[in-house]
Amino acid sequence: MSEAQVRADDRAHVFHSWSAQGLINPMPVEKAQGSHFWDYEGRKYLDFSSQLVNINIGHQHPRLVAAIQEQAAKLCTIQPAFANDKRGEAARMIAEVAPGPLNKVFFTNGGAEANENAIRMARLHTGRHKVLSTYRSYHGSTATAITATGDPRRWPNEPVAVGVVHFWGPYPYRSPFYASNEAEESERALRHLRDTIVFEGPGTIAAILIETVVGTNGILVPPPGYLAGVRAICDEFGIVFIADEVMAGFGRCGEWFAIDKWGVTPDLITFAKGVNSGYLPLGGVIISDEIAETFRERPFPGGLTYSGHPLACASAVASMQIFKEEGIIEHARMLGEDVIGPGLEQIKQRHPSVGDVRGLGVFWAVELVRDDRKTPLVPFNAAGAAAGPMTEVAAACKERGLWPFTHFNRVHVVPPCTTSVEEVREGLTILDEALTVADGFYTS
Amino acid sequence: MSEAQVRADDRAHVFHSWSAQGLINPMPVEKAQGSHFWDYEGRKYLDFSSQLVNINIGHQHPRLVAAIQEQAAKLCTIQPAFANDKRGEAARMIAEVAPGPLNKVFFTNGGAEANENAIRMARLHTGRHKVLSTYRSYHGSTATAITATGDPRRWPNEPVAVGVVHFWGPYPYRSPFYASNEAEESERALRHLRDTIVFEGPGTIAAILIETVVGTNGILVPPPGYLAGVRAICDEFGIVFIADEVMAGFGRCGEWFAIDKWGVTPDLITFAKGVNSGYLPLGGVIISDEIAETFRERPFPGGLTYSGHPLACASAVASMQIFKEEGIIEHARMLGEDVIGPGLEQIKQRHPSVGDVRGLGVFWAVELVRDDRKTPLVPFNAAGAAAGPMTEVAAACKERGLWPFTHFNRVHVVPPCTTSVEEVREGLTILDEALTVADGFYTS
Repeated sequence: MSEAQVRADDRAHVFHSWSAQGLINPMPVEKAQGSHFWDYEGRKYLDFSSQLVNINIGHQHPRLVAAIQEQAAKLCTIQPAFANDKRGEAARMIAEVAPGPLNKVFFTNGGAEANENAIRMARLHTGRHKVLSTYRSYHGSTATAITATGDPRRWPNEPVAVGVVHFWGPYPYRSPFYASNEAEESERALRHLRDTIVFEGPGTIAAILIETVVGTNGILVPPPGYLAGVRAICDEFGIVFIADEVMAGFGRCGEWFAIDKWGVTPDLITFAKGVNSGYLPLGGVIISDEIAETFRERPFPGGLTYSGHPLACASAVASMQIFKEEGIIEHARMLGEDVIGPGLEQIKQRHPSVGDVRGLGVFWAVELVRDDRKTPLVPFNAAGAAAGPMTEVAAACKERGLWPFTHFNRVHVVPPCTTSVEEVREGLTILDEALTVADGFYTS
Repeated sequence: MSEAQVRADDRAHVFHSWSAQGLINPMPVEKAQGSHFWDYEGRKYLDFSSQLVNINIGHQHPRLVAAIQEQAAKLCTIQPAFANDKRGEAARMIAEVAPGPLNKVFFTNGGAEANENAIRMARLHTGRHKVLSTYRSYHGSTATAITATGDPRRWPNEPVAVGVVHFWGPYPYRSPFYASNEAEESERALRHLRDTIVFEGPGTIAAILIETVVGTNGILVPPPGYLAGVRAICDEFGIVFIADEVMAGFGRCGEWFAIDKWGVTPDLITFAKGVNSGYLPLGGVIISDEIAETFRERPFPGGLTYSGHPLACASAVASMQIFKEEGIIEHARMLGEDVIGPGLEQIKQRHPSVGDVRGLGVFWAVELVRDDRKTPLVPFNAAGAAAGPMTEVAAACKERGLWPFTHFNRVHVVPPCTTSVEEVREGLTILDEALTVADGFYTS
């Protein structure tokens, strides 16, 4: 099919996510391999976005493609009430790498449904209704998931679901608690959370839902002690701790689950994206024995036609096998510690517009400012002309063959976990050049 | 993998939809082909359920499997902001078979998300909030979709989403309106709907969401004039007409869309299941030009990582091509008119327990009663011992190699659209035998 036909079909018939349909001009992508993808004019892009931070294993991994082809020939799908080899094997392998007594998996098609079902489980397990989630978060676009979301994507949807309360998570660079160091940030953030619970009514709160490491809203890495503190607060009040690892899990943070980094065990983990790098739609909830017990004789009132889809589960099994055999998680951790972290620190030294760099694994943010008072390079939720400086930074990357992930006043460095050291260095060099554009807006 | 291993993995690690996890014993399915599937002991089942009424093209259709394998080798996924050949081709092919000016497609992973997004579009298009849906309906298990649902699966989830009002749809066999014929049922059902709108406040109602032909809740075929009447009421009050064709669409009713049977054009159609027979998770919303225009310069506030997933879209393209080239829709229509319909009428004559048979295409219900006052064979929402007679009927089918779809006091005859005449006759013969079990509970 020609590029013209691809463009024509797209403009005539495809309705795109999160977009004003008449103001976009989607670029046709012809092919992808490893850390790169190509447009129809042969331009090659180094993928520093992992698409939507999901292609953790890289594009078109040959073994993963072969596993999908093999399962397609065997059995594409069977309904969720049956047992199936790949469904069970995927669940077992996920349980094996999950922390503590999280041993059962409820499969969904993606992250939004995973969060919807985790909240459902928490409500029925506790007999309480409210869910606490943070400002600066994204949890999906179905009714409860978008209501739990703490960014502007929620606004035009409200009111749609009931029972969500937002609180503030830690963010050392722009502390909501006027903290002067990470220890203070952690302590004050926990006090804020505990106070919020006390005034919302502990007996009304089913769950605390947090992204272990906040993703699209800033790659906010929790300061030491914070997650353990959340665990302690949940235990104190009988609240279910839901760790949203849709973006942070499966290698992104150089761990199977980001929360492993802090040795904390939540009650429920939600996942999607990296579990199979989105080669097929797949997500789910990993469930503690205690919560699973609630549904031993009481029916769980949720489900979906494609829960535990055999072809999707087969891709998860193969992806986890490849992760283990090719040392992909260790590689992602090394990239963060030895290449991206030090590389971004050097970039920060060279560019006055770089206010902060932070992250771990292949999950990093470069936060851009326009002065020494940390004024964001573009305003919160800027669009159109107001977002101009960020659009220019992104364009400078794309011109040089780097596809960046940008959000508000940040460039996120989120390549596949499989990206080579050389490719990462190449991408950081391009980013370094592109950031001179941001420096041009800086006034001291 | 051995059957024992499949069972062990399942029981230890898979959390199943809609189930008390300790009270189920999921049967391992080893393989499937065409109209059949097999357990690990070599027992072969004729699939009169199409799994969850989704395998419209039959199991493991060789050409569909080949198309998935081919696209897997080419490009499994790319993020939704890009244009992609299969994404655009699938959208174009769906728009081509959709009625009237429904020309754009927003892809989701399944039916629940399709309904969530259709309701979102209707609310923003109208600036109103309420959605009207029927008792006796299922629309999915995410927050808004389960709230729109009009069956007991909603109950344990409430309250979760806001703004849904339920009304009664037509059901000639057990008329909520004391109608004595289909024309009267249609007229009275429309008056009930109009009255409900007037008293809810027409200016508060964004959408009427109905299953064109109600699926799991009874294969309720709308009487002549009803859908045209709903269209007229929507036009009168500026309400968006959403046709949920997740189960009824893509061949199930012997049409591309069930609503084609009545020549009515809704504003939005939601689909999933039959679009690609669930070989990969895929669903979506087909959008009228008028509603698409609302989002030309105003961003649509919804999205998902796997919207327009290339591998899923490639399977939809191939499935639609196969439907056309192999005359599958015409075959499904013929099965309904010439084989299933007449066959079930004969069965009804032979079994006092059969109160009603109804349907079209490969979408039929056999409603079982225990006396001549239409008392249902088992009570509404019966479980455990109370559902015993239906469990016995299902067991009698399974013993004879037929896998039935049962719900409440009904057996649904919902084989793949590709089932041969001989296979359908074989299944009906088994059903005929199994229904003597139901007759045993009948008291005149």
